[in-house]
Amino acid sequence: MTASDKIWTAALIVIGDEILSGRTQDRNIAQVASWLQLQGIRLNEVRVVPDDLDAIGGAVNALRQSHDYLFTTGGIGPTHDDITVDAVARALGVEVVIHPEARDMLAAYYASKPGGLNEARLRMARVPDGAQLIKNRISGAPGIRHGNIFLMAGVPNITAQMLEGLTGQLEGGRPLISETIGCWAQESEIADILRAVEDGHDDCQIGSYPFFREGRVGANFVIRSTSKEVLESAVQTLCEALGEEGFDFTPGGI
Amino acid sequence: MTASDKIWTAALIVIGDEILSGRTQDRNIAQVASWLQLQGIRLNEVRVVPDDLDAIGGAVNALRQSHDYLFTTGGIGPTHDDITVDAVARALGVEVVIHPEARDMLAAYYASKPGGLNEARLRMARVPDGAQLIKNRISGAPGIRHGNIFLMAGVPNITAQMLEGLTGQLEGGRPLISETIGCWAQESEIADILRAVEDGHDDCQIGSYPFFREGRVGANFVIRSTSKEVLESAVQTLCEALGEEGFDFTPGGI
Repeated sequence: MTASDKIWTAALIVIGDEILSGRTQDRNIAQVASWLQLQGIRLNEVRVVPDDLDAIGGAVNALRQSHDYLFTTGGIGPTHDDITVDAVARALGVEVVIHPEARDMLAAYYASKPGGLNEARLRMARVPDGAQLIKNRISGAPGIRHGNIFLMAGVPNITAQMLEGLTGQLEGGRPLISETIGCWAQESEIADILRAVEDGHDDCQIGSYPFFREGRVGANFVIRSTSKEVLESAVQTLCEALGEEGFDFTPGGI
Repeated sequence: MTASDKIWTAALIVIGDEILSGRTQDRNIAQVASWLQLQGIRLNEVRVVPDDLDAIGGAVNALRQSHDYLFTTGGIGPTHDDITVDAVARALGVEVVIHPEARDMLAAYYASKPGGLNEARLRMARVPDGAQLIKNRISGAPGIRHGNIFLMAGVPNITAQMLEGLTGQLEGGRPLISETIGCWAQESEIADILRAVEDGHDDCQIGSYPFFREGRVGANFVIRSTSKEVLESAVQTLCEALGEEGFDFTPGGI
């Protein structure tokens, strides 16, 4: 395996009672996953945990060494239920400190706002000792990087800004590329063809995603590979097989 | 602690490369979470894992004994990437068998459909030995129960039907009830009030969920308890404190 063949992996911890209660529909998993793919980093596992020091810390220590990168979303705001920094610091065995640059950023941001930089807002300058900041354009509060751990906001559009700031900064491998073939058929009619195409190509995974639409059943088949050549060959083989069997299929997906 | 005070807990494993690639926005976490709350069961952890026997099996064995119930979504269809039954059977150390009732259901369902009950479709009658079926009205393929483990579909509207079939069947505790107070203020202005109300009430958690809307910032505070009395007292205390400080707040949320 050459350096360029290394598969870079990440895990994500989504922190928040609001996700586990069903109150809030998570949008960070899909957002972080899509962004990681573009960086050539594979998201291998996600855990959703409550606002609880032990639960967060346990997940951090379970995942930070078994993946190249660990991301968290949620729990870095100003209120009493924002305990991600404390949990991560405890998991790493480091102190929580006020980051001087974060304090200055917050002071500037809140200078013209009612209440100024009060104690609750100053909580957002707390970081695990040794951390760097991840800036964002929307709110005064930065994300936090400590080694291979990245603490992001829970609010999806703030997380999007933090990811934007990290784009191109993390070492990754060749991105996974994909093509989609849609087919007006039950996936159970196509199962043997899919298996044969996948078995016939190394570095190729095919996912099958059925749907019910306009009163008809169909499925989209997503072919993924890190190799353009393998991907093209797999797509061609699949289209030929679907055509020979007389299926109604659409390159690009339905 | 009396029997009625027992906190019933569940974990959920979301299975699928399509979630980890960002291609598909998960909808099952929120759906299962909301349903569990109505059953008086607390969702304590979610893991999202790829279509991989070891990853699924590892998550099953990590979670099935530490929670009263374990749910999975995804990977019980007819295609080669549907390996949940195999992974769970291996994790439990039991054989995979054809469930005769599931086979009969599938045979009836596919009798009038092109291709009939082919080998791929018969895969959906495979269960870990000792399992019972969870019926659903939409597709011919049932969900699967094995002890405290519930294997559900990945397609959200089929999972919804399976949950409907389980409604009222699982023993739970007192459901967590909640009230929401919306407030046109930055959550960082309210942080001290929230902490004081939560500290003043046992069996009460308050979540703070900021938003940017119509060019203004605000936050919804969700107060949760299993006790109606505690909930009412916490809501009243919070509203009084917000009123005394002159904040613009809306019971019921914004």
